[in-house]
Amino acid sequence: MATEQPTALDLPMVDPLPAPTRKYFDVCTDKLGMVPNVLQAYAFDIDKLNTFTAMYNDLMLGDSNLTKLEREMIAVVVSAVNRCFYCLTAHGAAVRDLSGDPVLGETLVMNYRVARLEPRVRAMLDFAVKLTEACETIEEKDREDLRAHGFSDRDIWDIASVAGFFNMTNRVASASDMRPNDDYHAQAR
Amino acid sequence: MATEQPTALDLPMVDPLPAPTRKYFDVCTDKLGMVPNVLQAYAFDIDKLNTFTAMYNDLMLGDSNLTKLEREMIAVVVSAVNRCFYCLTAHGAAVRDLSGDPVLGETLVMNYRVARLEPRVRAMLDFAVKLTEACETIEEKDREDLRAHGFSDRDIWDIASVAGFFNMTNRVASASDMRPNDDYHAQAR
Amino acid sequence: MATEQPTALDLPMVDPLPAPTRKYFDVCTDKLGMVPNVLQAYAFDIDKLNTFTAMYNDLMLGDSNLTKLEREMIAVVVSAVNRCFYCLTAHGAAVRDLSGDPVLGETLVMNYRVARLEPRVRAMLDFAVKLTEACETIEEKDREDLRAHGFSDRDIWDIASVAGFFNMTNRVASASDMRPNDDYHAQAR
Amino acid sequence: MATEQPTALDLPMVDPLPAPTRKYFDVCTDKLGMVPNVLQAYAFDIDKLNTFTAMYNDLMLGDSNLTKLEREMIAVVVSAVNRCFYCLTAHGAAVRDLSGDPVLGETLVMNYRVARLEPRVRAMLDFAVKLTEACETIEEKDREDLRAHGFSDRDIWDIASVAGFFNMTNRVASASDMRPNDDYHAQAR
Amino acid sequence: MATEQPTALDLPMVDPLPAPTRKYFDVCTDKLGMVPNVLQAYAFDIDKLNTFTAMYNDLMLGDSNLTKLEREMIAVVVSAVNRCFYCLTAHGAAVRDLSGDPVLGETLVMNYRVARLEPRVRAMLDFAVKLTEACETIEEKDREDLRAHGFSDRDIWDIASVAGFFNMTNRVASASDMRPNDDYHAQAR
Amino acid sequence: MATEQPTALDLPMVDPLPAPTRKYFDVCTDKLGMVPNVLQAYAFDIDKLNTFTAMYNDLMLGDSNLTKLEREMIAVVVSAVNRCFYCLTAHGAAVRDLSGDPVLGETLVMNYRVARLEPRVRAMLDFAVKLTEACETIEEKDREDLRAHGFSDRDIWDIASVAGFFNMTNRVASASDMRPNDDYHAQAR
Repeated sequence: MATEQPTALDLPMVDPLPAPTRKYFDVCTDKLGMVPNVLQAYAFDIDKLNTFTAMYNDLMLGDSNLTKLEREMIAVVVSAVNRCFYCLTAHGAAVRDLSGDPVLGETLVMNYRVARLEPRVRAMLDFAVKLTEACETIEEKDREDLRAHGFSDRDIWDIASVAGFFNMTNRVASASDMRPNDDYHAQAR
Repeated sequence: MATEQPTALDLPMVDPLPAPTRKYFDVCTDKLGMVPNVLQAYAFDIDKLNTFTAMYNDLMLGDSNLTKLEREMIAVVVSAVNRCFYCLTAHGAAVRDLSGDPVLGETLVMNYRVARLEPRVRAMLDFAVKLTEACETIEEKDREDLRAHGFSDRDIWDIASVAGFFNMTNRVASASDMRPNDDYHAQAR
Repeated sequence: MATEQPTALDLPMVDPLPAPTRKYFDVCTDKLGMVPNVLQAYAFDIDKLNTFTAMYNDLMLGDSNLTKLEREMIAVVVSAVNRCFYCLTAHGAAVRDLSGDPVLGETLVMNYRVARLEPRVRAMLDFAVKLTEACETIEEKDREDLRAHGFSDRDIWDIASVAGFFNMTNRVASASDMRPNDDYHAQAR
Repeated sequence: MATEQPTALDLPMVDPLPAPTRKYFDVCTDKLGMVPNVLQAYAFDIDKLNTFTAMYNDLMLGDSNLTKLEREMIAVVVSAVNRCFYCLTAHGAAVRDLSGDPVLGETLVMNYRVARLEPRVRAMLDFAVKLTEACETIEEKDREDLRAHGFSDRDIWDIASVAGFFNMTNRVASASDMRPNDDYHAQAR
Repeated sequence: MATEQPTALDLPMVDPLPAPTRKYFDVCTDKLGMVPNVLQAYAFDIDKLNTFTAMYNDLMLGDSNLTKLEREMIAVVVSAVNRCFYCLTAHGAAVRDLSGDPVLGETLVMNYRVARLEPRVRAMLDFAVKLTEACETIEEKDREDLRAHGFSDRDIWDIASVAGFFNMTNRVASASDMRPNDDYHAQAR
Repeated sequence: MATEQPTALDLPMVDPLPAPTRKYFDVCTDKLGMVPNVLQAYAFDIDKLNTFTAMYNDLMLGDSNLTKLEREMIAVVVSAVNRCFYCLTAHGAAVRDLSGDPVLGETLVMNYRVARLEPRVRAMLDFAVKLTEACETIEEKDREDLRAHGFSDRDIWDIASVAGFFNMTNRVASASDMRPNDDYHAQAR
């Protein structure tokens, strides 16, 4: 576990961590080879850590018609609008890994408009980007465009929720200068 | 309880609601005179409702050096940037109510820069607005400005978390055309 | 009459006011229950007050195919783009009052795009907003869109004139920190 | 007098013009060598023409500590932000003429920031431009900056009123595709 | 040759100039009546001057289906977006001269959208402006629009190269406060 | 050499390439392991290729007080503003390679403001970004800021020229949908 602070804020982890948190962090280390810094950052307050991980796990890993890759693609294009170093690094790596296409991950970080995407995925990302840049301009026509690409109303909720979630985390990360674990950078290149 | 859908998405509430949800909604009705539409909107999926309310309650009602009014003020100025009808309505009412100052609530909805605020509160709202409009430009200097107004690192985390949270909910509300309960409009005028 | 200055500029009203101005202010008090602060602000120079009221009365109360409510709706959406506290307060109250629909007034202040409007009114407000945000991009196509909704060339002039007028007053109000009379806030809720 | 319409709107002049208007237009022809198209455009309705000219003449030709050239400079920098062809042409010519410095007129049309201006004038134009681009951000500090350059509160009102007025006329001109008289282009080069 | 520095940077011309440069400057004086200040500005380093003039001459004077006037029109609309005093002055004069239409030159400087242009030229300028304002949003559809107006792929390259070139020179000119020769202002009025 | 077209424009390379071009491409293959697609894209016209490479080589490889790494850093931050996939890919790789710091390259692509940079380098990049985003606002104060960090007037010219150059190439690349060689992506990770 990093001895460096994961953010510019002096908010040390609860010490000792409660047993369930310790166990959760051990699972992360086993599966990912690291405890993502965002979890270490939230661990100054176990309630906040738990509400964050509950929402994250529901949105990114729970039941949805959106594939895990699609949800990660939304995470990256939202974070690209907001130029969030933490989220672009962590979720750019996830796109490279889940897609098996390192260039796709890079393209979404740099400019998703030049990626070669099927129209359905492009429509999904356009909605996520519009929602990020100018949510006050979303109207029924935007929802109709998604429906025309085969998305259900539940899918629209999920797209909006994932896009919304990263608009939150991008800001928590930027406000606190959260730093991604260095290991992400070389992953799945 | 409204029979109208709270959003433009066809996502009916689980029926029947599980007992704990029913009880939670009854508490809302007792205390607020209504079940806020956002809760009804999320109630198509009880897990999503629960992760949302857990995070909301931790941020807006949990322990913090920020007063409840200060957190509601952040909610309003963030939602004003994003021009979110739902959140401006619901949290504008909360500011009017908690402050006992109806004009303050209106001013924050319209243009917080012309409100007569103490410098500490103004600095807090400036940070929330900058984080909303241009989070990629936040730097150590911005955190130093907050510290100079007496905010601790924990306070900065809380300001960022509340501002981030409303950047999420503004987008979920806009994407789904979420409608506030009509009762809010006349409250605390 | 307020003893407080209506703006941040030290420009006291002519004292004594000339008889016609006094009479005009008495009419305001009779009909509105107040002398709007904008009139008090201009009353440091009776010529300026008179040219302002002449133009205001011609545009907002004179002959036009646009109803008085429609003109007030334009006033509000323009002032919402410019986040003008004075004009949003005074003309938001007018929309609530003239429409008998308090929620409509609130919605136009917050985000007119989510208001339930007939297409003709929406086209009128879209034109006013585009003219406010990016007048350099108005082209014949924009005028054709209005004509297709049944507006005559005279109507287009009137829409443009009202939108233009509030782009002026929003700036005079912002530049001088003009404060609306408190009475507006609770009106027609 | 032009036989061409001065705008893209089919709003012919009252015919015959009332005697005072005819006389006013004759004065224009004598002094300027033309009837400015803006006056012809408004002449479909004599009341509107009269309220416009009354306000114009008060602001641009009436008593003020601002020189006529300074008022024209404000007109040009506001119109440059809004890229208004009519007002840049007519008032650009006025700046060239009143200043005796053709390059100054061109510079204000293109980018006032590169003009060699005394700090007092620059502060005045910066205020006018900020008021045009982002009036919602004007605060007491902006007024203090003007006062520090020797402007009185009355001067601030005048700067704001002229800047506001051209924010109105720029929009009426853009909305109607108003065309300046060709004669302006070659004047005072 | 001007004794004043052509920019705000203290970078005097190589002295004496090498013979080929001297000859090139003499040709300029013969043909244009001046040595454009941009050439004097680059002449502190003859290699830089030569790579600049080689690219300039290839793009603006070399073989292309675009006429010289069309290339100058692109130069002006790009420079208008960037508000570049040097390039608007020099290339505005070129448009006035090559077109024999002084008003056209003025219109492109002020707001090309109100110029009366054939659709093919308008499409070309729209592409150049979009490329200048938001190049990250250019997609195949934008190229298809140009092809639909009869432009070949080579023409698209040329439009992009000229637009790109002035996006470069606008920035070199702004960064160095480059001043156009005064003679341009009165030309071809 | 790629058989695929390097851009979306149908502009095949001159065939056969002239001997000097062939030799230049062979040098690229020897030193870089590839012929960068930008060179292949320009090779439909050897004069254009030569003026491009002459300027590129002068700016990026010629004499300057700026190190090659510093020039590549400018290339990346400019291209990040413009979200240019080609230039971010190629010059991001160059920063990773020249700095020996893969995270630095990633950070500049994503958000240079969070990179840990010495103040002199940060000032250089801030100038390049301001010049890219809003060149019309550059004034003497901006040049003074660079001088205060030890940059000479010649250095300012070089910073502006490199920033200007990538504002050009970003637009040529975006307009033509130029694709970087795939090899860049995995380099120096």
